[in-house]
Amino acid sequence: MNRLFLFQWFLLLLLFIFTKTSISSKPHKIPRLTPLPKNIIQDPNTITSSSSNLPKEFETYYYNQTLDHFNYGPKSYSIFKQRYIINSKYWGGSNSSSPIFAYLGAEAPIDGDILGIGFLTDFAPRFKALLVYMEHRYYGKSRPFGTMEEVLKDEDTRGYFNSEQAIADYAELLLHIKEKYSAQNSPIIVIGGSYGGMLASWFRMKYPHIALGALASSAPILYFDNITPQNGYYSIVSKDFKEASKSCYRTIRKSWSIIDKIASRKNGLSYLSRKFKTCSHLNDSFELKDYLDTTYAKVAQYNNPPSYPVTVVCGGIDGAPKGSHILDRIFAGIVAHQGNQSCYNTSNIPNETSLGWEWQTCSEMVMPIGRGKKDTMFFSSPFNLDDFIDDCKSKYGVSPRPHWITTYYGGHDIKLILHKFASNIIFSNGLRDPYSCAGVLKNISHSLQAVYTRNGSHCLDILSAKPTDPEWLTMQRNTEVEIIEGWITKYHADLNALKHGKKP
Amino acid sequence: MNRLFLFQWFLLLLLFIFTKTSISSKPHKIPRLTPLPKNIIQDPNTITSSSSNLPKEFETYYYNQTLDHFNYGPKSYSIFKQRYIINSKYWGGSNSSSPIFAYLGAEAPIDGDILGIGFLTDFAPRFKALLVYMEHRYYGKSRPFGTMEEVLKDEDTRGYFNSEQAIADYAELLLHIKEKYSAQNSPIIVIGGSYGGMLASWFRMKYPHIALGALASSAPILYFDNITPQNGYYSIVSKDFKEASKSCYRTIRKSWSIIDKIASRKNGLSYLSRKFKTCSHLNDSFELKDYLDTTYAKVAQYNNPPSYPVTVVCGGIDGAPKGSHILDRIFAGIVAHQGNQSCYNTSNIPNETSLGWEWQTCSEMVMPIGRGKKDTMFFSSPFNLDDFIDDCKSKYGVSPRPHWITTYYGGHDIKLILHKFASNIIFSNGLRDPYSCAGVLKNISHSLQAVYTRNGSHCLDILSAKPTDPEWLTMQRNTEVEIIEGWITKYHADLNALKHGKKP
Repeated sequence: MNRLFLFQWFLLLLLFIFTKTSISSKPHKIPRLTPLPKNIIQDPNTITSSSSNLPKEFETYYYNQTLDHFNYGPKSYSIFKQRYIINSKYWGGSNSSSPIFAYLGAEAPIDGDILGIGFLTDFAPRFKALLVYMEHRYYGKSRPFGTMEEVLKDEDTRGYFNSEQAIADYAELLLHIKEKYSAQNSPIIVIGGSYGGMLASWFRMKYPHIALGALASSAPILYFDNITPQNGYYSIVSKDFKEASKSCYRTIRKSWSIIDKIASRKNGLSYLSRKFKTCSHLNDSFELKDYLDTTYAKVAQYNNPPSYPVTVVCGGIDGAPKGSHILDRIFAGIVAHQGNQSCYNTSNIPNETSLGWEWQTCSEMVMPIGRGKKDTMFFSSPFNLDDFIDDCKSKYGVSPRPHWITTYYGGHDIKLILHKFASNIIFSNGLRDPYSCAGVLKNISHSLQAVYTRNGSHCLDILSAKPTDPEWLTMQRNTEVEIIEGWITKYHADLNALKHGKKP
Repeated sequence: MNRLFLFQWFLLLLLFIFTKTSISSKPHKIPRLTPLPKNIIQDPNTITSSSSNLPKEFETYYYNQTLDHFNYGPKSYSIFKQRYIINSKYWGGSNSSSPIFAYLGAEAPIDGDILGIGFLTDFAPRFKALLVYMEHRYYGKSRPFGTMEEVLKDEDTRGYFNSEQAIADYAELLLHIKEKYSAQNSPIIVIGGSYGGMLASWFRMKYPHIALGALASSAPILYFDNITPQNGYYSIVSKDFKEASKSCYRTIRKSWSIIDKIASRKNGLSYLSRKFKTCSHLNDSFELKDYLDTTYAKVAQYNNPPSYPVTVVCGGIDGAPKGSHILDRIFAGIVAHQGNQSCYNTSNIPNETSLGWEWQTCSEMVMPIGRGKKDTMFFSSPFNLDDFIDDCKSKYGVSPRPHWITTYYGGHDIKLILHKFASNIIFSNGLRDPYSCAGVLKNISHSLQAVYTRNGSHCLDILSAKPTDPEWLTMQRNTEVEIIEGWITKYHADLNALKHGKKP
């Protein structure tokens, strides 16, 4: 088993842990906002490392960041330490006007992303770029108060934990870095993936005077306020499986009612627990269904080359001995994916990412992701906003604001609104990524471009280039880089023209 | 004396009251951010009226507004009543796609502006527009807590009193109004003057999905962070006087040292108090100089046709009997402007506008306006940021954030940044308005247009049309309206094209 393979496994495991968090308390009622756009890019060798273990060209700093950018009350004059990491190995220097590539951290400690997001280091030499990695407030070492658990318990401190404050942090910090490195003529390109990709596109829209352009990888900015149909995510998961194997798809589709039927029998749950070798006795049929559902979702989302985990799972399901029972086939799929284990863990341990993101979804990042029987291979489980709000209230005592994201950032009628407003954003997607259903897949204008691949998965384009990468992936990256190069060239030409009093 | 004349007087008096506020405590040290872009458009007949005295087509409503849009702490779930006024007399109706003209309230109760800002009612019939007037948070009847004095004393409540929260209010409220009036296809044009003009341009930049375009009248968006030279404002005041009369300009220029000289003599201040008929004995020479300076600034800012107050003041100064002492000439200018009074009041009474704006300038609206001897007719009084910060600290216990406005809204290199970003903003100015020094006076792109008049004053274009209006003013308004009409026509064409699957 090579290292890449191990890496995949690890990611899937992480996603699984993450995905499960919000369900256990109220099965069937609370729809999942996850599988989350997260933990996609962390190398198992770096995820537990602190930034002190990074190669020496990555230097760690802390900025005294404003706690509340939009308030002049006593608390907002508090500051907190925001971590950022600089790599100036490739940089052309302060007088060269070489660009700054700024990675916008998402809902995780920044450490894990630095080596995983190879896009920056891979293309830095070509641009002589200064690399900046900024940690998202409240994650990793950029948390104002105590542990994540402590922060979320305190209704005062958790209030400042949101996307508007986070991108304002990035604005303030990037201006600070420009000054610190005397890089006034260095255009900034912001780069992010998934939630971080949303932040990147929003940052360019809100702070065009700070970022020249944005690469927003797998950013489902249209999964709010019912712009995208609820079933979009699970429809693509289903399509991925159907494309891999129709018989595999059919087997999964049939399995849910069989699980329910067996679970409803006397000792049915014991039977299922044994059949699926669960580490602890199943509490109800949902627990098993959710475990399976999550596995299918994550393998679809991170269906990366060269192993293509959807194919691996379906290989197990289809490859079971002829005449096998449907549930034996399903289990064979799990074994093919997870490997032979003494038992399979259906429960989860919360981590700072799952906890933090749960708060973010219960405040503003309300993404109504549901499952319908009609267009998916899953059991029906629609998103119900009222139930979701009730659940958040019971957890935090406050209601989410489900319309705020579209009020602040827009999203409805995006083509009509943006075709004559904004510029220099690449919306990159892989169409096999379930989140691509809520991505921007058509060019909005000549400078708001959709760059996608038919076979790509979540955030694949910004991961490190590998010798095994298929040609379409290399081409996608090259297209993106050429667009960015075009922005930078035009920027310098405009700057030069303005200096000489000409029209840009 | 006709009504218009009375109106002028009243405005100037208000401005004077307003302008003085921040000086008295620390003369010479604290530079004025005022003369403020305010009280320009209030009709003396309406300024004290509550909205219940408005013509019946103006209907008053209150919206349950979110106190803190950028925080999910306990306080931010508080709501306050935000006042807004609707005039649907001219509106084409919900299915007509007729536009919405939305006036963004500035640093005053909204009542006074409604009849004064004639631009909306004058052009509503042509567009069949729905008219909306929204009051700025913390002014008028839209104050969350108690009186302005009480609000500003409380470090918690005053924290939410800023421009980012105010434009977020407008965003939320406009979406509410669109829903309430079933006006989903009605494009919104935001209109504002002075500080409200800044808000209008910023609103279009930050919320392009809510406003199709903005008319930003006399918006000094470049008077932050030293983008505009400090002396810009007073240079234009001086130029206005010089253009009206060189001898008048020279008289004023010479007067300051004479005042200082006399004041330094024994009983000098008594002499000056008598000479200028001050209502109370002058405390120092600065009090008189400041009174005069403020008068000159306000007459320059509101040098409106048909009376042109700069000409009136200079008429008094130049028209004094031959051989008159310089100070007699100066006083004659005051009398020409203010009329014959038993005494002239050099002190001021704070009002909610002056108090509220003082807080806004001491938090984020830090406009470094100074006076230099070189290029103005005034005594030297440069803006000193450190002194300003100290003064704000002593008043409120907190420091202003002088770089925040440019961090959030931009401003530096505006042509470079915006010529390929944003669209549909008219920056209108009158070049005789001292604030025009910090306005956008050149087209940035074909849809970010500067429309100015050589002889115009502060916010003149959005005031009600009058039979006495000079042709250049009528032409300016027509140009603006034609640009807006172009936006709306294009919007409907784009909407239609998109409906039929064509490229916009």
